[in-house]
Amino acid sequence: MDESLPCSGRSIFAVLVGASQLLGLTAVVLTGVWMGKYHGGYAWDGSAQEFNLHPLCMVLGLVFLHGDAILVYRVFRNEAKRNIKILHGIIHLLALIISIVGFVAVFDFHKAAKIPDMYSLHSWCGMITMVLFCVQWVMGLLFFLFPVASSQLRAVYLPVHIFCGLLLLVMAVGSSLLGITEKLLFSIMPTYSLFPAEGVLANVLGIVLVCFGAVLGYLITKEDYRRPPNPEEEALSVHFKTLTEGGTPATP
Amino acid sequence: MDESLPCSGRSIFAVLVGASQLLGLTAVVLTGVWMGKYHGGYAWDGSAQEFNLHPLCMVLGLVFLHGDAILVYRVFRNEAKRNIKILHGIIHLLALIISIVGFVAVFDFHKAAKIPDMYSLHSWCGMITMVLFCVQWVMGLLFFLFPVASSQLRAVYLPVHIFCGLLLLVMAVGSSLLGITEKLLFSIMPTYSLFPAEGVLANVLGIVLVCFGAVLGYLITKEDYRRPPNPEEEALSVHFKTLTEGGTPATP
Repeated sequence: MDESLPCSGRSIFAVLVGASQLLGLTAVVLTGVWMGKYHGGYAWDGSAQEFNLHPLCMVLGLVFLHGDAILVYRVFRNEAKRNIKILHGIIHLLALIISIVGFVAVFDFHKAAKIPDMYSLHSWCGMITMVLFCVQWVMGLLFFLFPVASSQLRAVYLPVHIFCGLLLLVMAVGSSLLGITEKLLFSIMPTYSLFPAEGVLANVLGIVLVCFGAVLGYLITKEDYRRPPNPEEEALSVHFKTLTEGGTPATP
Repeated sequence: MDESLPCSGRSIFAVLVGASQLLGLTAVVLTGVWMGKYHGGYAWDGSAQEFNLHPLCMVLGLVFLHGDAILVYRVFRNEAKRNIKILHGIIHLLALIISIVGFVAVFDFHKAAKIPDMYSLHSWCGMITMVLFCVQWVMGLLFFLFPVASSQLRAVYLPVHIFCGLLLLVMAVGSSLLGITEKLLFSIMPTYSLFPAEGVLANVLGIVLVCFGAVLGYLITKEDYRRPPNPEEEALSVHFKTLTEGGTPATP
C-alpha cells in the first residue's frame, strides 16, 4: 500500500478493500444459494436450470470481477503500470467470458421454453450494459494494452474510459437488482408479501450488491486512493492540456 | 460559465447541461403520462389514483430536483459560494417535501387497500434512499448552511457529503427502475412480452432515467467542471491536510 497515505488513511483503505471483497463474495454466494436451493441447481440443457446460470454468471462476471478489475489500480497503485494494465485486462477478459456464458444461458433457455426476448426493462438495461461492456473492453485493449492510438488520443480517451468503467459497474448492479425483482415476481408473487425465506434472501442479495457498488464507488473516486502520478503520465497530461487549451508545450 | 474552460469545453458543458435538463423533464413528463393515461390520473383519497402520485413525486423530487440541486454547483460555479449553498439547500428542501408527499401517498394507498408494506426489494432500496436523503439534508444544513461544526470537521465531512449526494442520486434512479419493473409486472404481466404501448413507454422512462443519471454523474465528477478553488477553501484544505498527516501548518 502507498506510504504517502497517513496511517489512519491506510487502515481505512484496507478495511474498505476487505469489505468490498466480503460484499462481492457474499453476493456471489447468495446468488449461488438462491438458484441452487430454491430453483433446482444448474445445467446446460435449455431447462430452467440453464437459466439459473444467468444470475450467477452476471453477478460473478459483470459485477464482482468487473469491480475487482477496476480496483486493482487502487490496490496495487505503486506497482509498474504496465503490469497493472495486464492484470486489469485479464480480469476484465475473465469477467467478459463469464458474462457471455450467463448471457447465452438466458437466451438458450428462452429459446427452448419459447419465451420472448428483450421486452422487459431488465433486458433493455442488461443488453445496453453488456454491449457497452464489450465496447469498453475492446477500446481499452486498443487504446491502452496494444496502443494503436496516439498518446494525445489516449490522453483524451482515458478519463472517458475511467468514467465509463464506473458507470458500467453501476449499470451492472442496477440491472442485477432489476433481474432480482423480475425473478421474484415471476416465481413467488403470491407469497412475496409474506416475507418467505426466498424473498428475504433475494432482497438481502440486492442490498449486498448496492453496498458492494457503494464501497467500490468510494474506493475508486476518492482522490487520496488514486495512483500517484508518474513523470510519464504527467508529461502526457501536460501535453494534452496544452493541446486542448491551444497553448504551446512551454506554456506553464 | 467559467472563462477558464476552453471554448470547446464550454460548448460541451452547455450541451451536457441542456441534455440533462431535457432528460430530467422528459422523465417527469413520461411518469406523469404513464400514471395519467394508463392508471386513471391522480387523487388524494387512498385510492389507486393516490398511489399514482408516488412515482410522479419520487421522479420529480428524489431524481430530477435532487440532481439539479447538485448541478447548481457546476452551473453557477463562479457565483458566491454562500448564494449557491442557499440555492442548493432550497432545491433540496423542495425535493425533500415532494418526496415525502410521494412517500406518504404509497403508504396511504397500501393502508386503504390493505396491501402489506416494505416486503419488496424496491421498498427496501427506496426506504434506505429516502432515510439517507433526509439524514444527508439535515447534516448538510447543520454543517454547511448554519455551520455548527468546526471548520476542521466541515473539511472532513465535505468529501463524504459530496460522495453521498451522488450515491443517493444513483440509488434514487435505481429505486425508480425497480419501481417501474414492479408496477409493470403487477399490472400488465400477461401482456408485457407483447410490447404493449404502456410497457414500451415505461421501459423508455427507465432508459431516460439511466441517461439522466449518467449525464449528471459525468457533469458532477469531471474535474474540469468543478468550482475553481478560492483562497478560503484552500486554507481550509491545507489546514485539514496538516491535521490528518500530523504535520504543522508550515509543512509544505
